[in-house]
Amino acid sequence: MANDTSHVKALVFDVFGTVVDWRTSITREISAVGSRLGVDADWQAFADRWRAGYSDGMQEFRDGEREWRTADQMHRERLDILLPEFGITGLSEEETDQLNRAWHRLDPWPDSVEGLTMLKSKFIIGTLSNGNIGLLVNMAKYGGLPWDVIFSGDLVNSYKPDPKVYLSTANLLNLEPHEVMMTAAHNGDLLSAQKYGLATAFVARPTEYGTGERKADLEAAPGINVGATSFIDLAHKLGIEG
Amino acid sequence: MANDTSHVKALVFDVFGTVVDWRTSITREISAVGSRLGVDADWQAFADRWRAGYSDGMQEFRDGEREWRTADQMHRERLDILLPEFGITGLSEEETDQLNRAWHRLDPWPDSVEGLTMLKSKFIIGTLSNGNIGLLVNMAKYGGLPWDVIFSGDLVNSYKPDPKVYLSTANLLNLEPHEVMMTAAHNGDLLSAQKYGLATAFVARPTEYGTGERKADLEAAPGINVGATSFIDLAHKLGIEG
Repeated sequence: MANDTSHVKALVFDVFGTVVDWRTSITREISAVGSRLGVDADWQAFADRWRAGYSDGMQEFRDGEREWRTADQMHRERLDILLPEFGITGLSEEETDQLNRAWHRLDPWPDSVEGLTMLKSKFIIGTLSNGNIGLLVNMAKYGGLPWDVIFSGDLVNSYKPDPKVYLSTANLLNLEPHEVMMTAAHNGDLLSAQKYGLATAFVARPTEYGTGERKADLEAAPGINVGATSFIDLAHKLGIEG
Repeated sequence: MANDTSHVKALVFDVFGTVVDWRTSITREISAVGSRLGVDADWQAFADRWRAGYSDGMQEFRDGEREWRTADQMHRERLDILLPEFGITGLSEEETDQLNRAWHRLDPWPDSVEGLTMLKSKFIIGTLSNGNIGLLVNMAKYGGLPWDVIFSGDLVNSYKPDPKVYLSTANLLNLEPHEVMMTAAHNGDLLSAQKYGLATAFVARPTEYGTGERKADLEAAPGINVGATSFIDLAHKLGIEG
């Protein structure tokens, strides 16, 4: 029974885009810096290109071109490129570091805290992000995310979709892979988790890249165990009332 | 300034004995099993010897005699020895496993949840136990312990006082060792943490081994940064009102 989820004991969540709306938060932070300095630019484009720096950084590691680095380090490297390109100069080291930590201050999607709190009543809930543990802990405190446990590629110095990242969660929780459900707004992440034996849940986040921009990942791919429209909907679908 | 703690950003806690009263909880669980089977014995002695099995198991690893194992595995090995010795026979595998997980159901000391909640308002709070992550997560859910993050020797397949266990916390939080404060009821743990650069806080748990049984660890050793009588007292001493 592909959709039997009765054996699931823990849910682990992709974070950027699935739990938090990084694009709106990052656009707001960089836009505020621009305003303060009297610089006008397409700050949504800045956010998208900053995010792409993280994806590119992980790919360089997967391709064997670079050493493993934390998300904070990849964010900072791309930030140092983007700031002058968008006309922002003269920030102090402290101001630049503070801006780089905008990724620690991302707003949850409106249903995230309520839905996670519901899910926590029945399941172990944890992150499973490529972001570093320090970033994820600060983000949880900022947004009130009620995680039971923080898992990250940080723990094995690799990134999803490396199987050891997915399997580290089951191993550290002393569970079987099928007792852990990967939850994400991105089918690629879920299909990888599924390949290594995890259960899977898709939660739609159609505006991650802005209204109408998302062409893929509008719904669960065939074979994903559960498809939901929010974390609250997911809780209902996993048998939690409220 | 030995007692300047203004740089501290995270507190990591020893768990068994410091956060939870393992002896009372374990005695209650094994005593209930005995009652059900009509077996009478000194169940506090059972609890103490079960606990000693965990200490012995870690020492066998440190001495190079055994492979690294989880707390669950060490608890189970000693349990299988103690049960027949105390006259308990005939438990099913499921009942034995359920009893072994008594270590996942340890009651917090009366001040633990309130004190941790206060400390969480200003600091990152996390475990730093030799217990496995799965055990620590289940215990937190059982007792309502509001951890931001779960750290364990599990993450580096070693046990305190191995420096890499202490230093993994600072590394994963992207902090300097002196920004992390080890908190424990055991001076030995604190003096080790201090040796590797962590800040230190002692919290007295005089009844860990029963009333009047504790001869050492009644107060902070010289050089420990903060000494406290409870987590609430510790919160006050770290500048948190309430």
